[in-house]
Amino acid sequence: MTQSQALLERGTSDTVEMTMRALVYHGPGRRSWEDRPRPRIEKPTDAVIRVTTSTICGTDLHILKGDVPTVEPGRVLGHEGVGIVEEAGSAVTGFRKGDKVLISCITACGKCDFCAKAMYSHCRNGGWILGHRIDGTQAEFVRIPYADTSLHLLPPDADEEAMVMLSDIFPTAFECGVLNGQVKPGDTVAIVGAGPIGLAALLTAQFYSPAAIVMIDVDDNRLQVASSLGATSTVNSAGGRAAEKVMALTNNEGVDVAIEAVGVPETFELCQSILAPGGRLANVGVHGKPALLRLEKLWAHNVTITTRLVDTAATPMLLKVVQSGRLQPKRLATHRFRLADVMKAYDTFGNAAKERALKVVLRNS
Amino acid sequence: MTQSQALLERGTSDTVEMTMRALVYHGPGRRSWEDRPRPRIEKPTDAVIRVTTSTICGTDLHILKGDVPTVEPGRVLGHEGVGIVEEAGSAVTGFRKGDKVLISCITACGKCDFCAKAMYSHCRNGGWILGHRIDGTQAEFVRIPYADTSLHLLPPDADEEAMVMLSDIFPTAFECGVLNGQVKPGDTVAIVGAGPIGLAALLTAQFYSPAAIVMIDVDDNRLQVASSLGATSTVNSAGGRAAEKVMALTNNEGVDVAIEAVGVPETFELCQSILAPGGRLANVGVHGKPALLRLEKLWAHNVTITTRLVDTAATPMLLKVVQSGRLQPKRLATHRFRLADVMKAYDTFGNAAKERALKVVLRNS
Amino acid sequence: MTQSQALLERGTSDTVEMTMRALVYHGPGRRSWEDRPRPRIEKPTDAVIRVTTSTICGTDLHILKGDVPTVEPGRVLGHEGVGIVEEAGSAVTGFRKGDKVLISCITACGKCDFCAKAMYSHCRNGGWILGHRIDGTQAEFVRIPYADTSLHLLPPDADEEAMVMLSDIFPTAFECGVLNGQVKPGDTVAIVGAGPIGLAALLTAQFYSPAAIVMIDVDDNRLQVASSLGATSTVNSAGGRAAEKVMALTNNEGVDVAIEAVGVPETFELCQSILAPGGRLANVGVHGKPALLRLEKLWAHNVTITTRLVDTAATPMLLKVVQSGRLQPKRLATHRFRLADVMKAYDTFGNAAKERALKVVLRNS
Amino acid sequence: MTQSQALLERGTSDTVEMTMRALVYHGPGRRSWEDRPRPRIEKPTDAVIRVTTSTICGTDLHILKGDVPTVEPGRVLGHEGVGIVEEAGSAVTGFRKGDKVLISCITACGKCDFCAKAMYSHCRNGGWILGHRIDGTQAEFVRIPYADTSLHLLPPDADEEAMVMLSDIFPTAFECGVLNGQVKPGDTVAIVGAGPIGLAALLTAQFYSPAAIVMIDVDDNRLQVASSLGATSTVNSAGGRAAEKVMALTNNEGVDVAIEAVGVPETFELCQSILAPGGRLANVGVHGKPALLRLEKLWAHNVTITTRLVDTAATPMLLKVVQSGRLQPKRLATHRFRLADVMKAYDTFGNAAKERALKVVLRNS
Repeated sequence: MTQSQALLERGTSDTVEMTMRALVYHGPGRRSWEDRPRPRIEKPTDAVIRVTTSTICGTDLHILKGDVPTVEPGRVLGHEGVGIVEEAGSAVTGFRKGDKVLISCITACGKCDFCAKAMYSHCRNGGWILGHRIDGTQAEFVRIPYADTSLHLLPPDADEEAMVMLSDIFPTAFECGVLNGQVKPGDTVAIVGAGPIGLAALLTAQFYSPAAIVMIDVDDNRLQVASSLGATSTVNSAGGRAAEKVMALTNNEGVDVAIEAVGVPETFELCQSILAPGGRLANVGVHGKPALLRLEKLWAHNVTITTRLVDTAATPMLLKVVQSGRLQPKRLATHRFRLADVMKAYDTFGNAAKERALKVVLRNS
Repeated sequence: MTQSQALLERGTSDTVEMTMRALVYHGPGRRSWEDRPRPRIEKPTDAVIRVTTSTICGTDLHILKGDVPTVEPGRVLGHEGVGIVEEAGSAVTGFRKGDKVLISCITACGKCDFCAKAMYSHCRNGGWILGHRIDGTQAEFVRIPYADTSLHLLPPDADEEAMVMLSDIFPTAFECGVLNGQVKPGDTVAIVGAGPIGLAALLTAQFYSPAAIVMIDVDDNRLQVASSLGATSTVNSAGGRAAEKVMALTNNEGVDVAIEAVGVPETFELCQSILAPGGRLANVGVHGKPALLRLEKLWAHNVTITTRLVDTAATPMLLKVVQSGRLQPKRLATHRFRLADVMKAYDTFGNAAKERALKVVLRNS
Repeated sequence: MTQSQALLERGTSDTVEMTMRALVYHGPGRRSWEDRPRPRIEKPTDAVIRVTTSTICGTDLHILKGDVPTVEPGRVLGHEGVGIVEEAGSAVTGFRKGDKVLISCITACGKCDFCAKAMYSHCRNGGWILGHRIDGTQAEFVRIPYADTSLHLLPPDADEEAMVMLSDIFPTAFECGVLNGQVKPGDTVAIVGAGPIGLAALLTAQFYSPAAIVMIDVDDNRLQVASSLGATSTVNSAGGRAAEKVMALTNNEGVDVAIEAVGVPETFELCQSILAPGGRLANVGVHGKPALLRLEKLWAHNVTITTRLVDTAATPMLLKVVQSGRLQPKRLATHRFRLADVMKAYDTFGNAAKERALKVVLRNS
Repeated sequence: MTQSQALLERGTSDTVEMTMRALVYHGPGRRSWEDRPRPRIEKPTDAVIRVTTSTICGTDLHILKGDVPTVEPGRVLGHEGVGIVEEAGSAVTGFRKGDKVLISCITACGKCDFCAKAMYSHCRNGGWILGHRIDGTQAEFVRIPYADTSLHLLPPDADEEAMVMLSDIFPTAFECGVLNGQVKPGDTVAIVGAGPIGLAALLTAQFYSPAAIVMIDVDDNRLQVASSLGATSTVNSAGGRAAEKVMALTNNEGVDVAIEAVGVPETFELCQSILAPGGRLANVGVHGKPALLRLEKLWAHNVTITTRLVDTAATPMLLKVVQSGRLQPKRLATHRFRLADVMKAYDTFGNAAKERALKVVLRNS
């Protein structure tokens, strides 16, 4: 059944289940674009959103590799999106049908002890569940629990390509990297990893006017992009002498802030080795293995190391900064597809280096 | 030549070198109480202090084991002390002959970029040098460089046993453990290691009224001391199930703050495993080896891990709190010796568990 | 109709309006204990609470004087209380019938921009509305909007006299006075006003181990109470030389923190005049008039002045600290009445100096 | 005796007193450019600087009006300058003859309790003394006490016009206005007063990427300059409806930060009236009179008001940011004079509105 058929049926009977198209995970390495029942309001605090723009995250690729066993086959993927409220539950007071909204990658009940601390990532009733434990946004429609505290109102004319970057990568890069790294005016910052998250960290680190930002990656194309986005120097770490080069760049003092945006032990250990006394190491990467912590050196080095799953507490601020023109998130959008071509989009995004892909935008309009 | 001879000679001629008695390191496992030239003013910012009270630190034992290769044979040990100003250099303005002073274990020039940030531990001209790179306080006299910014004035009637605890262990436990751990009212705190530093962390954590403090050690005697000093529960970790016990005590939520006060990988890893989301792990221990950092779990756990060599920036505050009666540092003093019996004091302190020793006080008066 | 009649009628018909007894404001100087319709669930996020313990606040006296024109005649007064959930709306997930709860004096929707910043005092849908814009807690029953984010669960055996102090005065004193004043270990703190709020500030300031707390009031009885609760010195300001006395007590340095807990220009100006350079003036008092700000002196004095309507964001922490035994809020309860005797309780509380009253507890059980 | 005569005499005899030219205050309204004894090292911590660039501050005009009675007739004015070390005292370790240096307007001993807290403004041995209690920088030479902690090393090729702005106005605007105002990304900031300090606040507020900066002044020329320097909107307050206009610009929400950079009660009161709940009012202006604090409104408005005499603790950071190119302080330099023409420079600066003068640069090279 096609979408138009589904819409047709809506007119005839409520008892007929309406369908939609969605990108569904079927176990490691297997995904398809297929018909699925269209989501409905299940609790009075839910909203159903018609997705107008979505995108693909590196995490979605991890899921497809089988690295995230909590994702069960049959799950609709995707945790980023912009859309239009199709239906709001009876207890939803902040949104109504027709509103344009940004979908947060983190669902927050707004009531638990973690939500009271704005640590929505660990919400006892939510957290990262979209495209993980419940169906996600790479679909024509998505159900958002706790809509009042998990959506953000957008103006009708908001630029959806820019906004969809605020579902996940910008709050992630900013909160886990820049805020936790306590970037300050005059600082020297190193960012390891020039993928979309690392580049979003590069853009948002500039909110605080550091004196220098050194971008480190193995891909010269991405380093060029970094230079165009404000990196004051770049280091290709392919040769294995990245730490040495960073120390030389910093007059052997080390950096004030090192942001890890890759997620492997080697890059985390590189970050440790370039920290100045008093430095902050802010982990953003998703790690699958332990790393060595060089306590025999670091115990006396006055460092702070942070980890964080994004809370999206900074999203309202990011919306203001985007609206002020001081941040252009869409600079990370390199490829555009129709949502119906999401299978192709995955091929491109999964081959990012060759395709020179950063973020691929999926439009459903 | 004895001390009295030295004093005699002082009366007769300035050109005769005066001597004193001092505890001297002669390479791994070798120490002696012996004659040494009495220190003189070398720079106008120096002061020479007649030591009236000193003590021995765990670090001194490490030096004697040969673990600190930057300490050369021939070095007078000791970085803690209270004394009387014997002579002040011409540029010293804050102290004069006869003043009673607390000697900070950290020497601060007061001029460099690190000193400007109150990060005296990394002072470019000082830092931890006493009993390390220059002669220390386990002697009748000691030269203190940058006296104006490395000594603290005490009232003439100050209790020296209490005060000598503020040279190192209280600022260390407070700054590296409690301040870095951001202990707050209502928090649940775990402290791993109930030695002098861990117990000082226990006492100073109470500055901030945590709801619970769990003390963890392998020594039941020390855990009993901890209970008497304010621990709300204790866990003997000898059986290897400490993490499990702490989780049970915290209703499986974990602790807000874990303070590592031992310095081995196992205890650091224990701290990681008991942190609640949003928790802080404050390292105080001196480590000789790397530890595993469980990033595959912690990346999404919103934790903060800190390391720090004590800055002694908190010493003026600690002095005020001691003077107000809200802190009794001498509760950690278990044994007393004449300074001249420092060799015996080392034997006792080196056998702390059997001797039930915490801090051994050395009096020279 | 009595309460028992009302309960009887509940059994017979839902359409019969049930009544309760309540303390009702009838314009300046006029109050009565009278029958009122018993509140019902109006929105799915409401809960109705059977009040088991309540109390009277200084603000209630202000209302009765006519100082708060936003309170309309016919209003049930009271914004403090402990009770049992009688009925919870369909969207309430955190509480159910029979739960013992603490009622926050501040109602928080949990969804608006101010709630997202934990600034519940300025909640766009709540804030201070109880006993102000909607009926309050000096009644047998009260309706609490946004129950999930405006109530706190208590254990069934919680000491209600202690807990009712956490509805308002302890969070107020702590947040507006102690937190905003940034009380730190070793600080010298002055608190102007030894009424219930000032004394609650005195107790919670001790969470942070200041070296000295100077309590200032015109009532020697209250100053004696202050001494018994931890003030290190007291100043009777009746003679008008309070500033001079505080300066003498502080060796002419002034105080680190001055907490204003009265609410008149004179006491606010006293606070200004005793601040050390770098000091913080935390206003807690409810003011009806402007005060002079001595900018000609203060512009170069590096001070911070704060105002705040309580957010009650600290209530969960206060509950933990009370449960740990480190805070005994009931030490402020001086008089006890049956709720049905609330008219008498007002007489006593309204004559606090003569009656030596601090907080009067109203029990309905 | 002319300067060349003085230099000649230096060759012949040390005992002959050398002279220099200097701008001397002779009581209200009276100043002259005249011969003065050239300063010498008085203490081992002093340095004598040959001034190569100086400037005039609004405070100098206040002194000339007689508003600063602590300045005695005969005083050489000026507290801003760049120069070359002519001679360094024996205890000075950070600078030597020939070094190019920035002179801080605040002299810091580096040893007292206030210096230990980086609150150099209240240094017990220094603070603002240059051109106030000791001779200042509008002269060919100046003696700087505590040189090691009161000067900053510059590279030989530093742009002196830019650097001289870092003696006072940039640290003042940044510390007192921007830091104290806690400007954050996305904030709405109002700055009242578009003189040199207000404009420096405008430039440094942008370190933190606020979404909007509203500049308020009565002078349209200055408001145009503000627009060119980054103000997102401007309000001419001449008509007296500034508060109303700001509220309209902020959708009636008020501003997050209001920076007062004028120094009269009216502008301070304007700042109060435009603050959003939770807002910060950072005073920068030098005030001669008290202002009314509208506590009857503000007590419940959750505001923070700060005052501060500049500490210049931020100067090292500002130097880094200037060197990185992210800040161009010389954009405030509108007029240039030879130091010998300082009398004329005062005429221009004293007539700033008509002359469209911001900062006048005095060159002595």
